[in-house]
Amino acid sequence: MALTVAYDGAPFAGFARQPGQETVQGRIEQALRVVLRREVVTTGAGRTDAGVHALGQVVSYDALPGDPDLRHLRRSLDALTGEAIVVREARRARPGFSARFDAVSREYRYRIVTGPAPPLFLARFAWHVPATLDLAAMRTAAAALIGRHDFRSFCVTASAEGANTEREVLEIDVRHEEHLGEACVTLVVVGTAFLHSMVRVIAGSLVEVGAGRREPGWIREALAARARSAAGPTAPAHGLTLHRVVYPAGVWLADSD
Amino acid sequence: MALTVAYDGAPFAGFARQPGQETVQGRIEQALRVVLRREVVTTGAGRTDAGVHALGQVVSYDALPGDPDLRHLRRSLDALTGEAIVVREARRARPGFSARFDAVSREYRYRIVTGPAPPLFLARFAWHVPATLDLAAMRTAAAALIGRHDFRSFCVTASAEGANTEREVLEIDVRHEEHLGEACVTLVVVGTAFLHSMVRVIAGSLVEVGAGRREPGWIREALAARARSAAGPTAPAHGLTLHRVVYPAGVWLADSD
Repeated sequence: MALTVAYDGAPFAGFARQPGQETVQGRIEQALRVVLRREVVTTGAGRTDAGVHALGQVVSYDALPGDPDLRHLRRSLDALTGEAIVVREARRARPGFSARFDAVSREYRYRIVTGPAPPLFLARFAWHVPATLDLAAMRTAAAALIGRHDFRSFCVTASAEGANTEREVLEIDVRHEEHLGEACVTLVVVGTAFLHSMVRVIAGSLVEVGAGRREPGWIREALAARARSAAGPTAPAHGLTLHRVVYPAGVWLADSD
Repeated sequence: MALTVAYDGAPFAGFARQPGQETVQGRIEQALRVVLRREVVTTGAGRTDAGVHALGQVVSYDALPGDPDLRHLRRSLDALTGEAIVVREARRARPGFSARFDAVSREYRYRIVTGPAPPLFLARFAWHVPATLDLAAMRTAAAALIGRHDFRSFCVTASAEGANTEREVLEIDVRHEEHLGEACVTLVVVGTAFLHSMVRVIAGSLVEVGAGRREPGWIREALAARARSAAGPTAPAHGLTLHRVVYPAGVWLADSD
């Protein structure tokens, strides 16, 4: 079974279950326990950090024949997870489906509000950078990150020696958008998978370039250095949203609700 | 002097100053008192109700020669009004300028999220209507409201006998939009001026038509009845935003900040 879940990251200590902490996964497993009347272990497509939002997080677990129908399931779970989590969809997936390992790609969006006045409606969903950003320079810099690279410089928790820090970035789009009447710059970052805080370090580094504090070519050097200190700052969590996770069409079994 | 102000309506008992209540105007006047070191009486372009938001509310007051420059003024006020109010711009207007009486038109936006799953990021800024809305029917109904009419049926506080309830609606656009990844139906309502809660009764009435509970032609009858009971319900305050107020170009004196 696959649940598509949206959440406001602010009240949670991240997605991943942690004893004694308020987490998204913990809340969902608690709701599943009530609705399915058994212990359920779930897997999430992306382990978002504390404060990071999701529009299209996908959570999987093994369904059993006696489980409620999709409509009842979605509604009951949504009612039990509280208002900071919305269970948007429930879909049947083939047996053994894993939201994490079956994912083909993940799309994150990082939103930035520029200019002197802070955002209002976007205050909880965008990073306020009181500067003018050069989007062309940011796009040039972003191009150097596309493809398969060792992203060690863009990983916050220094991975243990020998950990594989190679990842593949498929797309980085830097665009102007408007949400609720407020203008923002949105970074659309698509990759097969990401390291811890990787999108936030990419965002922090691209803002260094956009604000003119670094040349676009600097990103390539930062990547080559394979050291966290070589890249830019980690952009704040609240600007980031896990937007969508893509799976092969073959994993779905039937209609959704 | 004209201040362009955005606010989240949730924490306030409306725009208009009321003794002992937390209001947007009260907060702004309090901030002006600190920055200008005198009592300041302001005028707002629209007296938005409790819970109604604004992106482009305009607030005017009489400036004096010794007042701080626009940049300092905007920043100081913004710092003093708290995070639910953003002072977006300060502009010099000609002497005697009134945000209320000089306004040529006011644009409100009413946002509705349809479908079974509630909105998440838009939860505080849109009305959740768990139905499918027929936008074509809503547009047909809306067309009957364009022009100068007696909108008594669309006014919540039954005006005292003899009060003028004639108003002119210039445009009602019913459109699909997407904000922060969530789809919504937005009503763009432009008029020279509005009665109390008029846009919310228009929204509530158009939803009656969109959901199929009323025929599009019913709106014309509701208008002709000149009785509040003839129109639809008052849509909730949190879906409404005062988006913009338009003034003749001649009122502005100099650059803004």
